[in-house]
Amino acid sequence: MTPLVRAIAVAAPLPSLGDNTGDLDRLKKVLAPQLGGGMPVVPYQRLSKVAVRFRAAGFAGAAIINDMAGTPVLVDFLSQPPKVLAGMALDLGTTHLEATLLDLSTGAVLARADLENGQIRFGADILTRIHHAAKDEGLAELHAAIIDSVNQLATELAGRAGLAAVSEIRALSVSGNTSMVHFFLKLNPCHLCREPYIPMVNAPDPCLAGELGLAIHPAAVVWLLPSVGSYFGGDLISGVLASGLDQQPETCMLIDVGTNAEVIVGNREWLIACAGAAGPALEGGVARMGMRAGPGAIEHVRIDPTTGEIGYETIGKGKPKGLCGSGLIDLVAELYLTRQIDIRGKFRPQAAGERLIAGSEGYRFVVVEGKDAADGQPVVLGQVDLDALMRSKAAMY
Amino acid sequence: MTPLVRAIAVAAPLPSLGDNTGDLDRLKKVLAPQLGGGMPVVPYQRLSKVAVRFRAAGFAGAAIINDMAGTPVLVDFLSQPPKVLAGMALDLGTTHLEATLLDLSTGAVLARADLENGQIRFGADILTRIHHAAKDEGLAELHAAIIDSVNQLATELAGRAGLAAVSEIRALSVSGNTSMVHFFLKLNPCHLCREPYIPMVNAPDPCLAGELGLAIHPAAVVWLLPSVGSYFGGDLISGVLASGLDQQPETCMLIDVGTNAEVIVGNREWLIACAGAAGPALEGGVARMGMRAGPGAIEHVRIDPTTGEIGYETIGKGKPKGLCGSGLIDLVAELYLTRQIDIRGKFRPQAAGERLIAGSEGYRFVVVEGKDAADGQPVVLGQVDLDALMRSKAAMY
Repeated sequence: MTPLVRAIAVAAPLPSLGDNTGDLDRLKKVLAPQLGGGMPVVPYQRLSKVAVRFRAAGFAGAAIINDMAGTPVLVDFLSQPPKVLAGMALDLGTTHLEATLLDLSTGAVLARADLENGQIRFGADILTRIHHAAKDEGLAELHAAIIDSVNQLATELAGRAGLAAVSEIRALSVSGNTSMVHFFLKLNPCHLCREPYIPMVNAPDPCLAGELGLAIHPAAVVWLLPSVGSYFGGDLISGVLASGLDQQPETCMLIDVGTNAEVIVGNREWLIACAGAAGPALEGGVARMGMRAGPGAIEHVRIDPTTGEIGYETIGKGKPKGLCGSGLIDLVAELYLTRQIDIRGKFRPQAAGERLIAGSEGYRFVVVEGKDAADGQPVVLGQVDLDALMRSKAAMY
Repeated sequence: MTPLVRAIAVAAPLPSLGDNTGDLDRLKKVLAPQLGGGMPVVPYQRLSKVAVRFRAAGFAGAAIINDMAGTPVLVDFLSQPPKVLAGMALDLGTTHLEATLLDLSTGAVLARADLENGQIRFGADILTRIHHAAKDEGLAELHAAIIDSVNQLATELAGRAGLAAVSEIRALSVSGNTSMVHFFLKLNPCHLCREPYIPMVNAPDPCLAGELGLAIHPAAVVWLLPSVGSYFGGDLISGVLASGLDQQPETCMLIDVGTNAEVIVGNREWLIACAGAAGPALEGGVARMGMRAGPGAIEHVRIDPTTGEIGYETIGKGKPKGLCGSGLIDLVAELYLTRQIDIRGKFRPQAAGERLIAGSEGYRFVVVEGKDAADGQPVVLGQVDLDALMRSKAAMY
């Protein structure tokens, strides 16, 4: 497998009246046999830098070659081969970023680090961010926030690995869910949240770090693991590759629980996958009374099958403010077990009794009355919330 | 032969829950069979524009595909195939720019125009400009001047051809001498004027017009005819291709007289070429008393073989200020015929007599005495000038 970036040692014959080809042509010619005979491409913005550095190094040293979707791209020239050829592997999570710095010459791990995703201030869940991206400067803000987080993480990694500068990182591979990849590339994912849930792109071509405003080397290749579909991103593909699920003779299951959760079942002959909201995506994004798992969040619910009385526990034991993900799942399960909702997730008024109130947006089920709640507002679950939960948890590719 | 840019009509199946691939992936997939099976590449800076326009057009219309050194590059999408697909063929001369606008769908000529090279204010000849490029802002000034001239010419062509805007020009091919190509690409040609006369690049990879600041479509492909050597540029290659010199069974000669002149002799089996200064390059660049062919320039010289008396004619019949190219050639020829210089171009003091003065820089030959000259300064030809002329006219690849 060709690494994303390579340093290839070369020593070219010196120019003379009898051998007066151009500096860059000289370098390409001496590189071609080491690249399987093909000439590398030099992007315009790197042309002058490569040629000047090649000459300054006395026409010998190390050429830096990116692999851009199979095409060798010549982006830099160093007088000496670099001690390490640092590449960053990044997991672009909705809530957290995780990264590993590797020496691509040897495969050795140089450092690891993680960081909270700076986009959280625009919404804990992806749907809120997709809606934010539709606003005037929304997409630019989300893009700037994620690039800033990646830059912080890269700087942290460079420091831990003892690199002289973050710009010594010369490659970046990114795995993330489809929406995160859109934000990272400053693409508007507005069609991702409406049926039929279409991304702008699943498999973007590699680009250079400078084009995205990244702090790593401006000519570092940025490669993104391809997404499969609307909510099956490169992060899931990474999981399949890392676990070897697609090579197994036995049928296995891969569960990736993040802000969104994905499940893949399959073997070397077939794979089937489904995805749904989890964590903050479920808590904040699906139900209007949903909230992150903090003080005042209902996390357990029991409904007495005989009396219909509702028992609950809140985080911190205080008065309830809303429902976190676990509380929401508990509540819906208990409502189903006590037959207050049917198998399609619809309220059954004859069973739910007086806690069910009909309104302009359909039924609302009062979990906690206003007098018992933290801020005097009842904690309720509407038919709308139930429908959203069903859709979210049943999402399937 | 694949044109530099093509418009390929496509109609993709509409997205649905059962066919939910990304917009750009959908477009690439439907294009691949029309590109010989290979997927086109989409540069990062065009990704969002192409995807958004493809969707806005209802997933049907015309994809604009650049040919970038053999790689199909998808750069735009139009709802309707364009009426003309305008490409500009540019001859980037030291003194003049000449251009033709063609419809690349049909090969029809749409318009022709020419313009003086705006770099002339930095020097009429290439050597002066190469020296100017070595100054702080020199290269940036020369680059801006040539880009500005090309933009003026493109705007003129677009107007004559009745295009709605200059940005409808979607391809540019450039043939120029090696130095002009360097200035056009903002590359410093400083090593071109010193032995062994090495360009920074002979065969640059294609780039996009936006990268160079051109006014034509920012995603227009810019393709440069490759140079062969120091002073054999893409302009000469164009001449060989256009004349078919390299296909001839008979030995033929191609003479390209511009600011620099090139001569190629050869046939389908071999070609040999030489180049030398001509026009302003000869007049201003080679001899210190050289000047452009204007009032006061000596344009004809005769030396009486018996008396050694010098007769001359100036342009405008006024008092002489210096020598234009024709005058310089005349003078050297007459000096040789009267044996005042030898076959190596060296002054022969015993024959030249009292007009020859020895100084710190070697011999100087007084053509016109100060009392007869326009500004009281004698018109002289030094051994240094003669040596420069010999080198210039004998330049050979």
